[in-house]
Amino acid sequence: MSRTSKELADYVGAQLEGDGNLQISGCASAASARAGDVIFVEGAKHLEEAARSAASCVILAPGIALAGKTILRAANPRLAFAKILAWMFPAQRIVNGIHPTAVIAATARLADGVGIGPCAVIEDGVEIGAGCEIGAHSFLGHGAHLGAACRLYPRVTIYARVRLGSRVILHSGAVIGSDGFGFVPTDEGYFKFPQIGTVEIGDDVEIGANTTIDRGALDATRLGRGVKIDNLVHIGHNVEIGENTAVAAQTGMAGSTIVGRNAMIGGQVGIGGHCRIEDGAILGSGAGVLPGKILRGGVPMWGIPARPLDEYKEINAWFSRLPELGERLRQLEEAVHRK
Amino acid sequence: MSRTSKELADYVGAQLEGDGNLQISGCASAASARAGDVIFVEGAKHLEEAARSAASCVILAPGIALAGKTILRAANPRLAFAKILAWMFPAQRIVNGIHPTAVIAATARLADGVGIGPCAVIEDGVEIGAGCEIGAHSFLGHGAHLGAACRLYPRVTIYARVRLGSRVILHSGAVIGSDGFGFVPTDEGYFKFPQIGTVEIGDDVEIGANTTIDRGALDATRLGRGVKIDNLVHIGHNVEIGENTAVAAQTGMAGSTIVGRNAMIGGQVGIGGHCRIEDGAILGSGAGVLPGKILRGGVPMWGIPARPLDEYKEINAWFSRLPELGERLRQLEEAVHRK
Amino acid sequence: MSRTSKELADYVGAQLEGDGNLQISGCASAASARAGDVIFVEGAKHLEEAARSAASCVILAPGIALAGKTILRAANPRLAFAKILAWMFPAQRIVNGIHPTAVIAATARLADGVGIGPCAVIEDGVEIGAGCEIGAHSFLGHGAHLGAACRLYPRVTIYARVRLGSRVILHSGAVIGSDGFGFVPTDEGYFKFPQIGTVEIGDDVEIGANTTIDRGALDATRLGRGVKIDNLVHIGHNVEIGENTAVAAQTGMAGSTIVGRNAMIGGQVGIGGHCRIEDGAILGSGAGVLPGKILRGGVPMWGIPARPLDEYKEINAWFSRLPELGERLRQLEEAVHRK
Repeated sequence: MSRTSKELADYVGAQLEGDGNLQISGCASAASARAGDVIFVEGAKHLEEAARSAASCVILAPGIALAGKTILRAANPRLAFAKILAWMFPAQRIVNGIHPTAVIAATARLADGVGIGPCAVIEDGVEIGAGCEIGAHSFLGHGAHLGAACRLYPRVTIYARVRLGSRVILHSGAVIGSDGFGFVPTDEGYFKFPQIGTVEIGDDVEIGANTTIDRGALDATRLGRGVKIDNLVHIGHNVEIGENTAVAAQTGMAGSTIVGRNAMIGGQVGIGGHCRIEDGAILGSGAGVLPGKILRGGVPMWGIPARPLDEYKEINAWFSRLPELGERLRQLEEAVHRK
Repeated sequence: MSRTSKELADYVGAQLEGDGNLQISGCASAASARAGDVIFVEGAKHLEEAARSAASCVILAPGIALAGKTILRAANPRLAFAKILAWMFPAQRIVNGIHPTAVIAATARLADGVGIGPCAVIEDGVEIGAGCEIGAHSFLGHGAHLGAACRLYPRVTIYARVRLGSRVILHSGAVIGSDGFGFVPTDEGYFKFPQIGTVEIGDDVEIGANTTIDRGALDATRLGRGVKIDNLVHIGHNVEIGENTAVAAQTGMAGSTIVGRNAMIGGQVGIGGHCRIEDGAILGSGAGVLPGKILRGGVPMWGIPARPLDEYKEINAWFSRLPELGERLRQLEEAVHRK
Repeated sequence: MSRTSKELADYVGAQLEGDGNLQISGCASAASARAGDVIFVEGAKHLEEAARSAASCVILAPGIALAGKTILRAANPRLAFAKILAWMFPAQRIVNGIHPTAVIAATARLADGVGIGPCAVIEDGVEIGAGCEIGAHSFLGHGAHLGAACRLYPRVTIYARVRLGSRVILHSGAVIGSDGFGFVPTDEGYFKFPQIGTVEIGDDVEIGANTTIDRGALDATRLGRGVKIDNLVHIGHNVEIGENTAVAAQTGMAGSTIVGRNAMIGGQVGIGGHCRIEDGAILGSGAGVLPGKILRGGVPMWGIPARPLDEYKEINAWFSRLPELGERLRQLEEAVHRK
């Protein structure tokens, strides 16, 4: 399907500079764009590549000049491009209808327009909201609840009684509601602390491939509306994550930690148990937070243990100079003792 | 099902203080407890929350006073609570009977009371002990052996010839017996070193969601009785882990490392190949152990490379003061050279 | 099946020392070898164990003496052993024929000799090359393409349009082609950047259990011929990895990073987005590379941030001596100010 540059500009509220009748048939990166494609440029350093590209139309931030292309001028070129992409190439349904090999309990309640893929298993008492797509081999344990328009890619496991909001996207291999890691040491080995809580996931949450989210021990592990979690992340029991917080790949949070809203947690971060990460906190990739710590929002935090980025940089610069410091100290000792 | 406070006290050997006829119908956290619930308090700092809670009955350690509640006095309140929880709310079977969509080889041998979920696949020569529950979409490769009363949540993969003891719990997405990462570099690229060993897992082991345990190259990767492994852990080929050792989420152990009994390994720990981690070792989250190292038990070890916690703390305190040290050194140089 | 020592020597081009008619029926480690087994010894430090072992035949590097055994002299004993192992015990097919429970779209094209396991799902337009084995519960999304002789262990997910070369091995739980982690922050929360790219995987690639490889945002995430990836690795969108590069377990690479050929990346390494890791780079386990960095090949790099191993060792030695440095500085200050 093709749109004119004018239609695209109108759709995203961009200002058109150039030919409004240009037919745009694709969205691409500058490197692989062909004639008829729209691309976007975020900063001046990518301008040359955009100029060289075969793209017909370029989404550009205000104040940057680019000759020879039709321009869509937008305050946030990436956002405008993403909206055009989603408009021109809407995500296709991954499942349509109920596949005959799906195993659906008689007591499960499916709203209108639910798609269930091959070999998916829906247990007793499950409720699935309108328009949900349940990919092949996915498993919904008894009493699980899904709001409307959720998309579960193939092979997602939802343990019993877990609750999802609407428009939740779960990628393949995600496990929601597995037992928390709770054991009481005894003289005869560990005694399992039964994990009878659950998981509650808000609207518009997306969770990456092979990520695991444990159920609470007694209460619920909670992810707020709009939370985005990348691949291979571990969320321990009783963790709570506030709205619109993003967590990059391979990060882990131990039990009972509370993360505020609008936080940004990098990849491979480790957060100990019972921490409080405040609203708007920014944690750089690889950072570590000791159990029980409180982390303020506002300034980016980095390193192990996590500290403000400026401080981290200064200390690390000194760290790199340790051999020099050692040598200077030695020379000074010589100088002092020689006197 | 409801029990009296007296019955609970008797069941766990606690001393009852207060009304023995109190009907207890639930186990809860202090924060969410309602009338009729039992809760537990571990330390004095949670006492106030317990007092404010609606719980009727509180499990308390000796020597702590709490007015207005019926008390179960126990040396280990968490353990007493976990036992009561497991008694009042025993884990329900996740699978009953053999689902007609399960694919079970004619040569597989199933003992009494085995449950097999929808679409599970049981290959030739598999042996499954009495009472095992094999969740939906789980796969047992040819010749695999399970003792009695194992529970495999949906979507567990057991490669060929892997052996599990009894009462083993495997969470969704766990992969047991995948090939170790063994390749021999040659001028034409890597030549795969065939991984013909297996995995042997002892009784009462629990393994978390999406954890991977590779088979030995020639011999077996072994987990001793009572080992507890959290989510997203990687255990390389030929690793051996002794009885009752616990390993938290996202930790990795490279090939041929040997871990003793009763060790506690934190989350996101990295242990290189061919290490020896001795009985009772304690490794803090995020610690790193270089290949081939020997780690003594007894004192908590922390950091990269792992060192005794006290030493780690002292060095890290100095690390934080590096800018100050640098400045003091500079001033001293000035003072010395001025003279 | 049994071979003579002479046959083994001829097969791998080793020089036979001793009885050429010895019947060899097994390949083993020194620790578990029995009479009739062949073992290999890589260095002098394992010689004693080999001598004590019950093995009949030992593959040895030139210049090392070992009495009492038939010797196969080979420049690379590990490689010779791996070749013998692969010859005597060729990997058995994991799937034969098309299982009746597999769900295969009418428009899928299967070449000769393809095996499809129970409950596997093959969507519209999928192409599967000759001799491929698709394990139980594996999922091939619409338009996916597999070359010849690929082996997918049970429960592998291939998202739509992903392309694999020939002889690719994917272990259980691997997810190829999930959406990259791309979101644009807005005042109303994150707007999903549609991930319309794909993944292209070259010939002879092996990918470990529960590893996740995201599809490109607009273009392709690419793994070159012969790349070997261990378990639980995360490869972000638009990453490119050159031929014969190996990546150990739990390592993560953020989006748009480019890794050259013949690189060796250790376990639990974190590589930020938009990095360039050059051909032949060596990154020690646990290393961290900040976003946008360029890493030269040739010298092993270690630590966070990654630096040449020698430098890393020197700095870390000083790090361990920080308390001593602090004390020496204090004493010097006293000495100077006393004067």
